[in-house]
Amino acid sequence: MKTYKIAVLKGDGIGPEIVDEAIKVLDAVAEKEGINFEFNEYLIGGSAVDVFDNPCPDETIKGCLNSDAILFGSIGGPKWDKLPKEKRPESGLLKLRKSLGLFANIRPAIIFDELVNASTLKPEVIKGVDLTVVRELTGGIYFGEPRYKDDNKAYNTMIYTREEIEKIAHVAFKEASKRNKKVTSVDKANVLEVSELWREVVEEVAKNYPDVELEHMYVDNAAMQLIRDPKQFDVILTGNIFGDILSDEASMIVGSIGLLPSASIGGKVGLFEPIHGSAPDIAGQGIANPIATILSASMMLDYLDEKKAADRIKKSIKKVLADGYRTKDLSSFDAKEIVTTSEMGSLIAENA
Amino acid sequence: MKTYKIAVLKGDGIGPEIVDEAIKVLDAVAEKEGINFEFNEYLIGGSAVDVFDNPCPDETIKGCLNSDAILFGSIGGPKWDKLPKEKRPESGLLKLRKSLGLFANIRPAIIFDELVNASTLKPEVIKGVDLTVVRELTGGIYFGEPRYKDDNKAYNTMIYTREEIEKIAHVAFKEASKRNKKVTSVDKANVLEVSELWREVVEEVAKNYPDVELEHMYVDNAAMQLIRDPKQFDVILTGNIFGDILSDEASMIVGSIGLLPSASIGGKVGLFEPIHGSAPDIAGQGIANPIATILSASMMLDYLDEKKAADRIKKSIKKVLADGYRTKDLSSFDAKEIVTTSEMGSLIAENA
Ligand SMILES: CC(C)[C@H](C(=O)O)[C@@H](O)C(=O)O
Ligand SMILES: CC(C)[C@H](C(=O)O)[C@@H](O)C(=O)O
Repeated sequence: MKTYKIAVLKGDGIGPEIVDEAIKVLDAVAEKEGINFEFNEYLIGGSAVDVFDNPCPDETIKGCLNSDAILFGSIGGPKWDKLPKEKRPESGLLKLRKSLGLFANIRPAIIFDELVNASTLKPEVIKGVDLTVVRELTGGIYFGEPRYKDDNKAYNTMIYTREEIEKIAHVAFKEASKRNKKVTSVDKANVLEVSELWREVVEEVAKNYPDVELEHMYVDNAAMQLIRDPKQFDVILTGNIFGDILSDEASMIVGSIGLLPSASIGGKVGLFEPIHGSAPDIAGQGIANPIATILSASMMLDYLDEKKAADRIKKSIKKVLADGYRTKDLSSFDAKEIVTTSEMGSLIAENA
Repeated sequence: MKTYKIAVLKGDGIGPEIVDEAIKVLDAVAEKEGINFEFNEYLIGGSAVDVFDNPCPDETIKGCLNSDAILFGSIGGPKWDKLPKEKRPESGLLKLRKSLGLFANIRPAIIFDELVNASTLKPEVIKGVDLTVVRELTGGIYFGEPRYKDDNKAYNTMIYTREEIEKIAHVAFKEASKRNKKVTSVDKANVLEVSELWREVVEEVAKNYPDVELEHMYVDNAAMQLIRDPKQFDVILTGNIFGDILSDEASMIVGSIGLLPSASIGGKVGLFEPIHGSAPDIAGQGIANPIATILSASMMLDYLDEKKAADRIKKSIKKVLADGYRTKDLSSFDAKEIVTTSEMGSLIAENA
């Protein structure tokens, strides 16, 4: 029986509750597909600060490197907000991404027909949207040096090398080859030198993918077009900070941030996490929506090449939503029954 | 009779057509209010490159400095896209902003009840939205040094000084004092040093405005909240690049980019321009929507303290829209009659 070692990083806030449901679902599909998971927990974020005074302990990185994949919950909360920067949960997440070489973040915006009314956008605008954001995750202004702050001035550096741009561009074009064969590369080349290089290199990489169409779009226009007509997009390729902004914006097309998964890949081990944060205000109440995390687990199975197991999860989620089960965040959208975090996890596990 | 000297910078693409309509309307209200305008034209953008080989000639800057206000159309087009950076129309606009000290860009997102269906957002989400973006315009990553590019690497610097942040924060708080008394300051303080300073300084400035509420929001979350619930905002205060992205996004709430004006202030002379670009694809066809430019002229009158004249314009636009006149871009939204750019200008002039 095939066994996968999964590093489990539950994190803070609602992290533990939602990851537990993903594990429940993974165990259910494992049984049906005759595979096996070995789950090993490691601390990250605020909960790691509490124990090790370090938001990303070496032990966590070692554990991740020693696994086949990483399942991640969420990090952060008011308890740790006033700590010095290097101790804040966010720094732990950034260090983890960098240490593991997770340079490519992939965030599909998947519309569930059952929830087409959950968006603030009109149904005719979003029905049929099928786009994915490919965001560079270990470069750009997040990690650029020099960075500095005193009482009178502060700065950061947005920097990209040719090599970094090539790597992420290949990920986007490969993704588009498997999808609708269009890449929209987003930059601010009318103002930024770093975007000029971005555009040049993306055009060169494009030559290797003659069947994929490439278009360039300025980031301000992209922020607009995502609302005006999201159906025009297939793969959106962009840098770290623009990707941070645009992928969160794109998630709202779907209506609930509680539904969207992400994959961070490129290093030895892939990391899978919901795109939402740790929602400290609702932690521990059993009302968080576990679907984004369960879908992240499904992306993890795809990554492990367990396509059948991955599909089981996706189909089960669709069925449970079609049957009218909703967590509280989605209660106003054609709900037949409002269920808890754990009930939602059990329903998806049973139907998988 | 009071005379105002207006520098007119029509620019490229649809710029000349739409500015001509704004002038038509300004002349109409001038007559009714017993004031007078002296319009002096200067070249900017691609049209300045064609004549002076310079997208922002000294003569244009001098002319602007020698005026009471600047009415601006739009710049750019494929003809000038391949020129070296310093000759591109965009560089001309940036140089103009910097030379005139226009550090504050104000972009109200005004919803016309008559056009509530023009948005891709649901009417109940946008009805009653009344927000304005205050964007820092002459600092940040747009102008930060060092900036560099070779074939293998490129970088830009995002930098703010205490003084720059103080100045723009005061503009936002003053704006909020006159409005709904809430400032949402947008940054990425969980990652960027420059945002940490931004947050600190904004909190200090806030102490001078005890009746204005201040909240902080990360830029990724702001991109989401603008779609999820735009009514929560009053004044959004942010830096140059985040403001570029968020104000374009906010404009889509309204439905048409052809409707929104902006003011750039802070120096000796204010500049007023539509937020849209030069739309080279429709230039010269007489179908561009002049309303954003005419509303910019109305903001200019407010700035010149000609409130009654400014209100005449706003009321007239409302009436003309209520009467069912639409330019082509708005033809599907309760149109009774489709009119040209020039007819729309004449209708607004007549009713002003
Ligand atoms: C928590 C924060 C540092 C992080 C980011 O900005 O990358 C988050 O917003 C994300 O998108 O995963
Ligand atoms: C044309 C471009 C340089 C400009 C900017 O980015 O500031 C435009 O997008 C704007 O917002 O006025």
